[in-house]
Amino acid sequence: MAVLALDIGATKFAAGLVDDAGRVTAVRRAPVPATGVWEVCRDLLLAVAGGDTVTAVGIGSAGPVDVPAGVTGPLNIPEWRSGFGIVAAVEALFPGATVRFAIDGACLALAERNSGALRGVRNALAMTVSSGIGGGIVVDGRVSLGRTGNAGHIGHIVVPGWDVPCACGGVGCVEAVASGMSSARWARERGWTGETGAELAQAARAGEPIAVAALARAGTALGQAISSAAGLLDVDTVVIGGGFAHSGEPLWQPLRAAVERHAGLGFLRGLRVELSRLDDGATLVGAAVLASSAENPFGAVHP
Amino acid sequence: MAVLALDIGATKFAAGLVDDAGRVTAVRRAPVPATGVWEVCRDLLLAVAGGDTVTAVGIGSAGPVDVPAGVTGPLNIPEWRSGFGIVAAVEALFPGATVRFAIDGACLALAERNSGALRGVRNALAMTVSSGIGGGIVVDGRVSLGRTGNAGHIGHIVVPGWDVPCACGGVGCVEAVASGMSSARWARERGWTGETGAELAQAARAGEPIAVAALARAGTALGQAISSAAGLLDVDTVVIGGGFAHSGEPLWQPLRAAVERHAGLGFLRGLRVELSRLDDGATLVGAAVLASSAENPFGAVHP
Repeated sequence: MAVLALDIGATKFAAGLVDDAGRVTAVRRAPVPATGVWEVCRDLLLAVAGGDTVTAVGIGSAGPVDVPAGVTGPLNIPEWRSGFGIVAAVEALFPGATVRFAIDGACLALAERNSGALRGVRNALAMTVSSGIGGGIVVDGRVSLGRTGNAGHIGHIVVPGWDVPCACGGVGCVEAVASGMSSARWARERGWTGETGAELAQAARAGEPIAVAALARAGTALGQAISSAAGLLDVDTVVIGGGFAHSGEPLWQPLRAAVERHAGLGFLRGLRVELSRLDDGATLVGAAVLASSAENPFGAVHP
Repeated sequence: MAVLALDIGATKFAAGLVDDAGRVTAVRRAPVPATGVWEVCRDLLLAVAGGDTVTAVGIGSAGPVDVPAGVTGPLNIPEWRSGFGIVAAVEALFPGATVRFAIDGACLALAERNSGALRGVRNALAMTVSSGIGGGIVVDGRVSLGRTGNAGHIGHIVVPGWDVPCACGGVGCVEAVASGMSSARWARERGWTGETGAELAQAARAGEPIAVAALARAGTALGQAISSAAGLLDVDTVVIGGGFAHSGEPLWQPLRAAVERHAGLGFLRGLRVELSRLDDGATLVGAAVLASSAENPFGAVHP
């Protein structure tokens, strides 16, 4: 008897066994191939299951998703972009298993609520800032799903700098301004010679002026999007994970300054914005919560 | 035996009797005075009750509010701005009555769900665009409250044009750009000679260039804020009431164009943004829903 958790990322799969305490063990990873995506995912799940009967699977996926339909359509997985029926495929692979499916942002919120900064917090925003920007929201104690399972898409809040086209088809989204990838691109257009968001952060910490400006721009845009979301949702806690969120003060100082400047409503005094203590495996932790919950894992908590 | 509904607006009170079908009748109104605000409110409630025993009161109030504390603090009522204990005052006035209290935006969402455009809609945004901009949100079937009862504050989403200071203490809020009052001020600064948002809309419909530009600016900012909120919440329906929302095509054409431009996410295709069919009394209707509900009026609906 085995319970599995699966994280469908933009570039890699991760899967593991969920133990009786809800922890993920025996994690295996595989890069997402250009073609034969399901076959790689299937083989990873079978390897983790190791021949045991699988009773439950929790799946967190990069979005957008269509949760009511059981379909995932990550923008960065071309073969699946127009929609892949992940729930039906996993149900066929493990007949009789309970399969639960959510967007990665909702898994992040579940993970933070289960073992991170959102324990007992009834109104909150969990974000990931890496190559893209995503998130999940907790409203009145519940992890929100939204109409199609896509609630928490904070990456597509419009911010000043709005002439930047976004991969979503819109214009001026915070993801198009402030993700690691967007920030590195902006810096390269101005003569910086590095590649990744991590390199950009290192350059900014070393005082390289273009890198410093790129992180100030990203932090300001993030602070604006956070202020917009915090007012709309009436939250007091925002927790941010993801690689680019670990860029240090060159990102966080302007982020905090923008929150200070924009979050003027009285009920937002004391808004906490903090770095996640969970690591890259947060989506997998959330998928494990999905898999191991006896009842509705999104339901209300009462502190 | 009487059930009462009370609407605390920025400039006027309205109160009425709630009949067995949840309708509001015998509505009385009173302007909010500069001082002695509670006395006017109290006299209005007593006049509506007409000596009957009051068993329940539903209160919707301009915000911000502190619902857990039972305190209202409307920005535009100076005597109450730092906080007035409305729930305790009404409980003392009508001993034994059940008193329920929410922000006007949540009442708007309750009203639209009860008798307007949001019947059976599980994920939605209800807005009012008049001298200010407010709203309420429906998330997974529930009217959201937020940590302090202030969820739905869409008026303080940051939009391009962000150098405009806002009454909330922030900068660049959509309310500071696109409300009737803000739009009229912007037009006056450019030589338009009218006063109100209604006059501005009339001038725009007559083709007056400054008025046309003011409404285009407002509509664009509203469309941007709506796109930001719709992605974050994964809603498919936005309903807008309030006087300035009735400005016609000079407002709605740029609003729709901005939604078209910014709401690029696949799950937002088909997002409906429509004018409310409820009139000015929507908050009072929502307060009646609060007063007459046997159980949690914010709870989930299943279409």
